[in-house]
Amino acid sequence: MILINESNTGELVLDDGLNFGLGAFETIKISNGGKAILLEEHIERLKNTLNALNIKKEISVDKIYKYITSNNLKNIAFKILVTSENIVFSTRSIPYTSDYYKRGFNVYFSEYRRNSKSLLTYHKTLNYGENILEKRNAFTLGFDEPLFLNERYEITEGATTNIFFIKNNEIYTPKICSGLLNGILRQWVIDNFKVHEGLYTLEDLKSSHEIFLTNSLMGIMKVNKIEGYDLNLKYEKTYEILKTYLDFEER
Amino acid sequence: MILINESNTGELVLDDGLNFGLGAFETIKISNGGKAILLEEHIERLKNTLNALNIKKEISVDKIYKYITSNNLKNIAFKILVTSENIVFSTRSIPYTSDYYKRGFNVYFSEYRRNSKSLLTYHKTLNYGENILEKRNAFTLGFDEPLFLNERYEITEGATTNIFFIKNNEIYTPKICSGLLNGILRQWVIDNFKVHEGLYTLEDLKSSHEIFLTNSLMGIMKVNKIEGYDLNLKYEKTYEILKTYLDFEER
Amino acid sequence: MILINESNTGELVLDDGLNFGLGAFETIKISNGGKAILLEEHIERLKNTLNALNIKKEISVDKIYKYITSNNLKNIAFKILVTSENIVFSTRSIPYTSDYYKRGFNVYFSEYRRNSKSLLTYHKTLNYGENILEKRNAFTLGFDEPLFLNERYEITEGATTNIFFIKNNEIYTPKICSGLLNGILRQWVIDNFKVHEGLYTLEDLKSSHEIFLTNSLMGIMKVNKIEGYDLNLKYEKTYEILKTYLDFEER
Amino acid sequence: MILINESNTGELVLDDGLNFGLGAFETIKISNGGKAILLEEHIERLKNTLNALNIKKEISVDKIYKYITSNNLKNIAFKILVTSENIVFSTRSIPYTSDYYKRGFNVYFSEYRRNSKSLLTYHKTLNYGENILEKRNAFTLGFDEPLFLNERYEITEGATTNIFFIKNNEIYTPKICSGLLNGILRQWVIDNFKVHEGLYTLEDLKSSHEIFLTNSLMGIMKVNKIEGYDLNLKYEKTYEILKTYLDFEER
Amino acid sequence: MILINESNTGELVLDDGLNFGLGAFETIKISNGGKAILLEEHIERLKNTLNALNIKKEISVDKIYKYITSNNLKNIAFKILVTSENIVFSTRSIPYTSDYYKRGFNVYFSEYRRNSKSLLTYHKTLNYGENILEKRNAFTLGFDEPLFLNERYEITEGATTNIFFIKNNEIYTPKICSGLLNGILRQWVIDNFKVHEGLYTLEDLKSSHEIFLTNSLMGIMKVNKIEGYDLNLKYEKTYEILKTYLDFEER
Amino acid sequence: MILINESNTGELVLDDGLNFGLGAFETIKISNGGKAILLEEHIERLKNTLNALNIKKEISVDKIYKYITSNNLKNIAFKILVTSENIVFSTRSIPYTSDYYKRGFNVYFSEYRRNSKSLLTYHKTLNYGENILEKRNAFTLGFDEPLFLNERYEITEGATTNIFFIKNNEIYTPKICSGLLNGILRQWVIDNFKVHEGLYTLEDLKSSHEIFLTNSLMGIMKVNKIEGYDLNLKYEKTYEILKTYLDFEER
Repeated sequence: MILINESNTGELVLDDGLNFGLGAFETIKISNGGKAILLEEHIERLKNTLNALNIKKEISVDKIYKYITSNNLKNIAFKILVTSENIVFSTRSIPYTSDYYKRGFNVYFSEYRRNSKSLLTYHKTLNYGENILEKRNAFTLGFDEPLFLNERYEITEGATTNIFFIKNNEIYTPKICSGLLNGILRQWVIDNFKVHEGLYTLEDLKSSHEIFLTNSLMGIMKVNKIEGYDLNLKYEKTYEILKTYLDFEER
Repeated sequence: MILINESNTGELVLDDGLNFGLGAFETIKISNGGKAILLEEHIERLKNTLNALNIKKEISVDKIYKYITSNNLKNIAFKILVTSENIVFSTRSIPYTSDYYKRGFNVYFSEYRRNSKSLLTYHKTLNYGENILEKRNAFTLGFDEPLFLNERYEITEGATTNIFFIKNNEIYTPKICSGLLNGILRQWVIDNFKVHEGLYTLEDLKSSHEIFLTNSLMGIMKVNKIEGYDLNLKYEKTYEILKTYLDFEER
Repeated sequence: MILINESNTGELVLDDGLNFGLGAFETIKISNGGKAILLEEHIERLKNTLNALNIKKEISVDKIYKYITSNNLKNIAFKILVTSENIVFSTRSIPYTSDYYKRGFNVYFSEYRRNSKSLLTYHKTLNYGENILEKRNAFTLGFDEPLFLNERYEITEGATTNIFFIKNNEIYTPKICSGLLNGILRQWVIDNFKVHEGLYTLEDLKSSHEIFLTNSLMGIMKVNKIEGYDLNLKYEKTYEILKTYLDFEER
Repeated sequence: MILINESNTGELVLDDGLNFGLGAFETIKISNGGKAILLEEHIERLKNTLNALNIKKEISVDKIYKYITSNNLKNIAFKILVTSENIVFSTRSIPYTSDYYKRGFNVYFSEYRRNSKSLLTYHKTLNYGENILEKRNAFTLGFDEPLFLNERYEITEGATTNIFFIKNNEIYTPKICSGLLNGILRQWVIDNFKVHEGLYTLEDLKSSHEIFLTNSLMGIMKVNKIEGYDLNLKYEKTYEILKTYLDFEER
Repeated sequence: MILINESNTGELVLDDGLNFGLGAFETIKISNGGKAILLEEHIERLKNTLNALNIKKEISVDKIYKYITSNNLKNIAFKILVTSENIVFSTRSIPYTSDYYKRGFNVYFSEYRRNSKSLLTYHKTLNYGENILEKRNAFTLGFDEPLFLNERYEITEGATTNIFFIKNNEIYTPKICSGLLNGILRQWVIDNFKVHEGLYTLEDLKSSHEIFLTNSLMGIMKVNKIEGYDLNLKYEKTYEILKTYLDFEER
Repeated sequence: MILINESNTGELVLDDGLNFGLGAFETIKISNGGKAILLEEHIERLKNTLNALNIKKEISVDKIYKYITSNNLKNIAFKILVTSENIVFSTRSIPYTSDYYKRGFNVYFSEYRRNSKSLLTYHKTLNYGENILEKRNAFTLGFDEPLFLNERYEITEGATTNIFFIKNNEIYTPKICSGLLNGILRQWVIDNFKVHEGLYTLEDLKSSHEIFLTNSLMGIMKVNKIEGYDLNLKYEKTYEILKTYLDFEER
């Protein structure tokens, strides 16, 4: 962990960011080849979040690159956390092994609801507690990821993922205004494939032919179980999207 | 500020509490006479919040008393912040001068909505960003406090306060399940007066005869303007409640 | 009071009607001239209600006429109550004096909501408790009638009345499927004037130019205050409707 | 049936209680050993209901005990009905035979909705007609109990039961503010086991591993069919709860 | 196609009807025997629609009969389109072959919602675009008809059909105020059988025993698949209704 | 009017566009100087609408320019209507005189609701009937423009306008996903000023300091009355925006 504060005392400052969750963060995948995947997009979103939180803090892309190369980072998750008084760089290993991709994710629906009328729903901030609590709860119960409905019982997103489903060969994903964070990978899929964005319910999900999740660290992950029930889905289009993404990652 | 961590390095640990807002806090008023107002209730709520967040951390009431007396604290706000790896005590001055009580609060309704179906709505955690952002926004626009509706357009609470209104001499306050934090002062009013708890809308508020806000630092604060319009309310019952509270505080 | 039970013991039978509110009733105005106003319509509705409650009980119009003439009933409220084991006739004086018509009604909105998705909302049954409780509560607080919104905050009806409002000379009243009992007088107004039936909110009511209530005993009653605030409305079309009704009543 | 009225004429008085459903009732199980199960809790709730209905009527626990012992009541349902002018004691046999417990209940969802914004939803009053009508309708169609959703399509309760479901070994039951009557048995389960109270939908129910119903006469009853479809559930935790309850009943 | 305009230039006039969809139309089945099925009901509805659109245009039943007989129309769809400046008669073949009736319809739910609070939802006007777009979309995806929920996720109707379902031998269909067009065939079924009209959800549909669709051209059409899943329903009551209808058509 | 059809018969073809409202249109202001205001944006939107309706029809900008110049069009409304078989150019005079700008618009809220979950809500198509009916209804009642709420009682747009309001010097306008057509002028205001896009209710509107409407023909129009009540607003920022727009128009 490296702390880039002005004071350079090397200590975290207990500012409003840490007191009230008023800070932004990004988690970026560093590939086997040492490439920071979709880095410009992550930095762009980080700036937007800081702007929404009214935090005046310069993020230097140079420093990030230097940090990555000087530490020889490879196949690792690189995290940037920014509050009004702190900038922190840190890394951790990527938890998604090839086993996960083979079997797919086992998901369930949280009893909590996403709020489509909250500013922070749309930004990646330190107000991230419900995601982490629900993610932990999911693990305890034997699931890989909790999904959330909004206050009108429409599908929104997972705790740390976005969701897509395929029906009759068409790709669908919930609209941002359902109440979700626009993931960098979510945007990548939309930019590279024809995707319908709409307001969808559980019924739409249940009658779909393929379901997959996305986030920056896992890329594209198929879903094989909902609430523990085996979906017995045949994955074709999802694999096509996954292949396109892996090609992009390695390019 | 004092940091009571096990390691005793005197440094904040960047744990999940600070990374994701997974921590609890309480703000307690220390009266002119050095009394920690409703301390047992604050400690009790703090323990409940830590329990909900699954944080195993012992809070010693003795240490708190020692801190208050050894620092000779008087007429000040005392804050306790707890995450899985940190316990922090700190103080700040109380911002509510007698001027505020004379003129009353000028409030407005935020464009964001409280989420009645979120766990964290009901607990005082570091996921407090929207409250602070909206509170700041209110000050910029010349208001004292933003109020929030929920997703069904029912009244809930203010950013840092609970709300009560009086109609034909009866006291009303939104039900907890509207989506609000049960403030220590809110509970005190309910325990000491006959209060109806229900699901109320703006219409109920607009046709009321007196409106007041509560929190641990300000006690009982009348509202004299909504969205900048003078309400021209005659305050009687509110003053009676305020008097009872001031007597309690000094006892 | 007269009890027309088969057994003729002259005693009320504690049947499901009295145990669970599974009975029907009608309140019919007997005019100064001894005429039972809109009697056929009341009997028709009574039969419909009994049918909905699956109560097989014959109502003899002859017996009603005999009761009215033999008791020389005039300017009085005549009530019929029917359960599976009981038929009860009774009378009480009409509470609406000319003073009421001069000053108009002072109404307010109840904090409870009508249920548009309940069978009993649409029938006049002994499940009438909330109406009476709220009516009593209104009197205690100095109001004449409580009005109800439904679960979607649309206007429905009063505890014992239907509501109409006039805007730019057009007459409006909430649709039955908002969640209301179709009053005999409500239907009379619709049959005799051009009336829009729709889904309306408080906003529609507040921007209207005249408001009036109807029920079988009071006929047409203007509203002069909502929540205690004087509306300062000029009543023109309401008086025209009232005049037509009074002519009808005396015919 | 015994009628305990002041006048002692031995006749039911047709008061507002019988006219408008403004009365309270409780149904208490008398065990094989002649014990009135959870009697204090029933009396306490009865008093609360009378209070909510503003009925000033003293209930003497002594009279109840005397009635039970002098009539040598055993394995029977004992009912108390109270209105402003009447107190009625009566008994009937308990309809739940061992066959029911073996096969479990076959339930379905009513097309009507519970009203979460009505006072009477939360109290056990004579405004009980919809429950009885829907219960009868269920029997006609071959079901044991109708269940109700509220206006937001959340699960609430059955006509005469509360509902619980189990998922990954955790017990869940709808929150009171969904719109339900807090059954004496429901509270007993909550007091004796760890239970999550929340806002749940049909989806939550359908993905659960065990479902059971409670009321004072039947105790704990498993559900084996919804809408006629066999759920093929394996009951384990439900049997554990049932066993604990039977031990309690016989203690 | 025949155009009956006053000017008799034989040309369509680009009036508000064509510019903004402000026109009405009816599609009437001419039977094998040359009978215009339910013609009076169609003309009646056409007049109501023109009235709602404030179009003063006389429809001559004579001209219609003359057109049908002089053109010797048989087993064909006859369409009348009316705007403020145009009346157009046209015919097209009926697309529903006996194959359709044998296999039944394969339906799915559109991602769009019917609007229960729009005037045009309840009238058959040229504002018919969403129906046609969704119908075409359904064909592309291999379905026969798209169905629509309303804004509260209640079932309403198909793009060009009304929906009925049967449960325990009782017939159900969504209420008009759910947001649907009252089809001529829908009304015929209600007039000839006992039908419950209510507010129903997908859950109600999914637990039903038979499902069928109606419109003027197809008559009664069973549903055998929803979202591609085979329902394996046994059709009995539907065939009874179909038989009654076919008898009526040939009479 | 000029009709540019392939067949060149000079006659309108009664295609699906005219039968079902499946066509697009744009109304473009030609300034005093003969400039087609924001023509590129109009053409761009027209192409998007045709795409959404799946109409393959080329729009030649050259033909439009030639039409404007050859007809020497000035201070006039130029309309393009496109269906699968027809392209029609036409003109009409601009109805907004300087009187309108001086007194401002008198608006009211329609009893109908915009559908946020309909495709056609978001596109300018011939399914425009409700707008025109409500616009005519407004004129009859003495108003200039009807405004619409959506199914959740949020503000959306006017029949032919978009709405903005100003509070404490900040500009607000409803989000597209409330259910509105993104007007060319609406986008121009957003591109040229700092504007908050959100989900707003009547309460937000009523507590605002300035309100204005936009559309391509009228530009920027202040609102001086809602439901006939004089708002007594002081217009400052609106005039600034109007001035900027007029400069742009004349540039």
